[in-house]
Amino acid sequence: MRQSRRGQVDPFIVMDVMESARRAEAAGRHIVHMEVGQPSTPAPRGARRALAAALEQPLGYTVALGLPELRRGIAGLYRRWYGIELNPDRVVVTPGSSGAFILAFSALFDAGDRVALGEPGYPSYRQILRALSLDPVGIPTRVEDRYQPRPQDLPIDAQGLILASPGNPSGTVLRREELAALTARAAELGMNVISDEIYHGLDYGAGFHSALEVTDDAFVINSFSKYFSMTGWRVGWMVVPETMIRTVERIAQNMFICPPHASQVAALAALDCFQEADANLAVYAENRRLMLERLPQIGFSRIAPPEGAFYIYADVSDLTKDSLGFAAEILEKAGVAVTPGLDFDPVRGARTLRFSYARATAEIAEGLDRLAAFMAAR
Amino acid sequence: MRQSRRGQVDPFIVMDVMESARRAEAAGRHIVHMEVGQPSTPAPRGARRALAAALEQPLGYTVALGLPELRRGIAGLYRRWYGIELNPDRVVVTPGSSGAFILAFSALFDAGDRVALGEPGYPSYRQILRALSLDPVGIPTRVEDRYQPRPQDLPIDAQGLILASPGNPSGTVLRREELAALTARAAELGMNVISDEIYHGLDYGAGFHSALEVTDDAFVINSFSKYFSMTGWRVGWMVVPETMIRTVERIAQNMFICPPHASQVAALAALDCFQEADANLAVYAENRRLMLERLPQIGFSRIAPPEGAFYIYADVSDLTKDSLGFAAEILEKAGVAVTPGLDFDPVRGARTLRFSYARATAEIAEGLDRLAAFMAAR
Repeated sequence: MRQSRRGQVDPFIVMDVMESARRAEAAGRHIVHMEVGQPSTPAPRGARRALAAALEQPLGYTVALGLPELRRGIAGLYRRWYGIELNPDRVVVTPGSSGAFILAFSALFDAGDRVALGEPGYPSYRQILRALSLDPVGIPTRVEDRYQPRPQDLPIDAQGLILASPGNPSGTVLRREELAALTARAAELGMNVISDEIYHGLDYGAGFHSALEVTDDAFVINSFSKYFSMTGWRVGWMVVPETMIRTVERIAQNMFICPPHASQVAALAALDCFQEADANLAVYAENRRLMLERLPQIGFSRIAPPEGAFYIYADVSDLTKDSLGFAAEILEKAGVAVTPGLDFDPVRGARTLRFSYARATAEIAEGLDRLAAFMAAR
Repeated sequence: MRQSRRGQVDPFIVMDVMESARRAEAAGRHIVHMEVGQPSTPAPRGARRALAAALEQPLGYTVALGLPELRRGIAGLYRRWYGIELNPDRVVVTPGSSGAFILAFSALFDAGDRVALGEPGYPSYRQILRALSLDPVGIPTRVEDRYQPRPQDLPIDAQGLILASPGNPSGTVLRREELAALTARAAELGMNVISDEIYHGLDYGAGFHSALEVTDDAFVINSFSKYFSMTGWRVGWMVVPETMIRTVERIAQNMFICPPHASQVAALAALDCFQEADANLAVYAENRRLMLERLPQIGFSRIAPPEGAFYIYADVSDLTKDSLGFAAEILEKAGVAVTPGLDFDPVRGARTLRFSYARATAEIAEGLDRLAAFMAAR
């Protein structure tokens, strides 16, 4: 059987770390999980109750763009978070933010088009682009710019630009004026902008801004996975310009038919569960405080300011030139799973690690104790 | 904002029919639904109970290929249905069969590759191919071949072939020897074969055969949507050759992360619900009997033998050259929603209609009465 060239995408390295951790646990070891990019909490109670109540009904196909009341509810989130009055017709419910990227890339770019993205960044941007015969163009960012691209860094020969704020793995946030300058420069260069805002709501004082505050001419992607703690439900959304609604609808009808109905029911109810989501946020805030206090003492001091999300990205070039081997050593000797930076930056990631603090505080504290003992003995 | 060329896919015409029917219902009319391609029954009771019981657990990401016990359960279905011992590692759980097509096309074909498919056929094949920068090549099939392609019909310059048995809209089934001859000819021509078997289990005596009975060198796609009555849950699967598992896994990790976890829990339990699924099948069998008895009396006599699925495809060229207008007239005057053939065959579909019999028998009987009165008055 002939395989395609575009299908030869890189694996997620973090998946291999998770598999090594699983094997260690199967062999009886206790592992602290600082590798995973997801909350350990379930979907909000109200979301689960709403689904339980809906299980007697047939949950058939919904319309392709998602349940109308869910689209209205998501538009309401833009009022609550950013003070924006958003036309709910512009909201497209998607099978996770992953589905939103597939839709956006298909609607905006043709085979061979070039799409720019900051490095370090979420690895699947690059892989989804490749699988769709598009050409990812990495923009190496600097720690002094909080690992975010600057307007002068944008390539002049690309058709698209992906922004991410808060960034993964950096957790750093683009200010409103930075979003304005980047989107204005992209418009000058004729680039379509996709703004990944999946970690919005996970904010520790720096605030967060949507690209929609500065332009209507962007695709904005978000999800119920992180702030609403619903990763495995695969329900996200995308806000598109009015001129793109019908195009995106047709692609969604054919590529997905609809997002999972049960997950849409749960997501609609989650929009009434801010109290529970904020309680999770308070846990991450305490975890973050612990991480920022202790990581530098332990020996991980070169970190970007983690303003949002639940990640800390550490430059460990003073400790190793082989983050993959270093992460394996940490798993083996300390019983702590962390992610080598190579997932996020194919070049410089050999000298970086990502620590996630999305789990319970006791687990994070235990992990820090283990890291301290490991580094002291090294 | 610049739109892509490949994003300009055709709409699903049936979606417009459904919207017209919804408007008529909103205006107070009662409409009989013979347009929809989905059961009106919910997921099996056991599936819904299993999910209700699982709602206290966090339903986070699963591994990309799906829950291992679900993959084993699906492999067991191949023993039950076809007497095949299938390695569960070859089973990839997907976000609906739609997700399986995206994965298969990305793994097998590069931009510009040509993929052949029988016409009439499921319209999204063509649209997903286009959105992925692939080139659909229609094979006009003949009613005397039960609307299925023959080996001598395959183009000699295509990289892929999609087979569908039972077909949609035709409901016709490929015999084992036909599958053998088609896959052998495709292998000679160097075409990768994708076999859509989503309607397996919905069988009225003709039996059904998997491409896996005649070759391991094909991608076989199926879903919990139809026989297990779980359309909106978006959980399907794909069986791939052993050499393709790792490639498909990497693409799935990046494009989907995982299929919806809640739906996987429900699907696993559905595999124990054959009694309920077969009770639904008995309803379709009675509906089909009614349709085959009455449609010819009413004036729709040129039909392919509907051996499986829950569709009847009628040549109405003696009645109209404008199936779109004819379907609108039937909706308006008879209060019955049917699908114009243009969704399935962009050329000859102007003279065909698809009738679905997936609803309750009383509704089908009422629809047939209305169609009879409409045609008598015409």
